[in-house]
Amino acid sequence: MNLIESLNWRYATKKMNGNKVSQENVNEILEAIRLTASSYGLQPYKVLVVENDELKKKLQPAAYNQSQIADSSHLLVFAAFDTITEKNVDDLFELTASVRGVAVENFNDYKNVIKGSALQRPSEINFQWNARQAYIALGTALVAAASLKIDSTPMEGFNNSEFDSILGLTEQGLKSVVLLPLGYRDAEGDFLANAPKVRKPLHDLVIHLK
Amino acid sequence: MNLIESLNWRYATKKMNGNKVSQENVNEILEAIRLTASSYGLQPYKVLVVENDELKKKLQPAAYNQSQIADSSHLLVFAAFDTITEKNVDDLFELTASVRGVAVENFNDYKNVIKGSALQRPSEINFQWNARQAYIALGTALVAAASLKIDSTPMEGFNNSEFDSILGLTEQGLKSVVLLPLGYRDAEGDFLANAPKVRKPLHDLVIHLK
Repeated sequence: MNLIESLNWRYATKKMNGNKVSQENVNEILEAIRLTASSYGLQPYKVLVVENDELKKKLQPAAYNQSQIADSSHLLVFAAFDTITEKNVDDLFELTASVRGVAVENFNDYKNVIKGSALQRPSEINFQWNARQAYIALGTALVAAASLKIDSTPMEGFNNSEFDSILGLTEQGLKSVVLLPLGYRDAEGDFLANAPKVRKPLHDLVIHLK
Repeated sequence: MNLIESLNWRYATKKMNGNKVSQENVNEILEAIRLTASSYGLQPYKVLVVENDELKKKLQPAAYNQSQIADSSHLLVFAAFDTITEKNVDDLFELTASVRGVAVENFNDYKNVIKGSALQRPSEINFQWNARQAYIALGTALVAAASLKIDSTPMEGFNNSEFDSILGLTEQGLKSVVLLPLGYRDAEGDFLANAPKVRKPLHDLVIHLK
C-alpha cells in the first residue's frame, strides 16, 4: 500500500477487537515518532505506551468511557512538557555535540538564541508550543500505523487533568494533550468501518498562488 | 524506501537548489494533507501553495530572509481558521450527509454537541485548537514529501502577522501558523545535508506502562 492508499484505508476507529499489535510493529510506530520533526529538534514531549489492561480500564472513565481505551492493544498518550527549561535546551546541544562529534561550545550562540526566546516566555505559551510539536508526531504516527495496517484513533475527548493525575504526569512536568489507541478494527461492530471517508474537496482546502 | 528510511532521509533543509517539484508530486502531498485526520473531521485550516516567485520574494523578509522561502519550488503556508463558526459545523454535516447519501437531519444531535462546545469558547481557544489540527497535517505532509524524495523544511520562524497581511489572510478569517517549503536540497551548499540526524534515544522519549 502506498501512502495515499494507507490514508484512505485508515479511519478513526470507533470499535476495536482487542487483538494485540506485535511489539515489532509498535516499535516501528515509536521509531517514526522519534524520527519526525520538532521545533529546533527539542522533541518537547513524551509518549506513554499503556499496555497494562488494568491501567487502561482505570483511564477509560476519564475518556467518557470510549471503548477504544480498553479495546486497544496499546494506548499512546502524547504528553507535552509543561514548559521549556534551561536543561531541555542544554540537553539538546549535549546530544547534538555528542552525535556529531564536536564540542558543545560550538553551539553556544544558537543555544543562547533559543534560551533567549523560550526561557523568557510564560510557561503556558511554551506548553502550547510543545503541544503543537506533539501533534506533528501524531500526524506522523497515524501514517506509520496505517502503513502497517494497524488501526488508530486520534482522541482529544478525554479529561486531561484526570489522565495527568492517574498517570502521575504533573510531577514529571508533563501534561497529556492527545491520545492514539492502536489496535485492530472490529469491522462488524463499527458502523464507521465501511462508511465512505468524508473530506473536503481539494478546492475547499487549498489556495493556489501561481 | 519504507517509512523509516524516508524519515531518516529527510531533514530540515537549510539550502534548496531552486529545482521545481512536479505538479503530480505536489498534488500527492496535498492529497495526503486532505486525507489526514482532524478533530471531528472539521479540517479547520487552509493550505496556501505559493508558487509565484515574486510573492515568495515578498514573503522572504517576513521570514528573517531565510533562503528556503525563495529557493523552494512551492511554499506551503498552513493557515488555521481564526475561530470555529456555526457555518463551519453546518458545512461539515452537509458534506457528510452528501458523501454518505443520508439526510443531514440524522446528524442533528452530534452537530449540536459540537456547536455546544466549540461555539461557546473564546475564539482564541478555538484558534489554538485549529492550529493543532494544522500540525497534524504538517506531520503527515512531511512524511508524504519524504516518501517522494522531496525535501521540506517545517518553519515556525516567521512573522505571522506580516504573512497574514501580505497574503490577505485576516479578511478570510485565517491566521498563518506554520510553513513548509518544498523543493530539493542543495547538498553542496547545505552543511546539514550530510550531518547525522540528532534524536533522543527511545528510552528518553517513551515511557512504557506494561
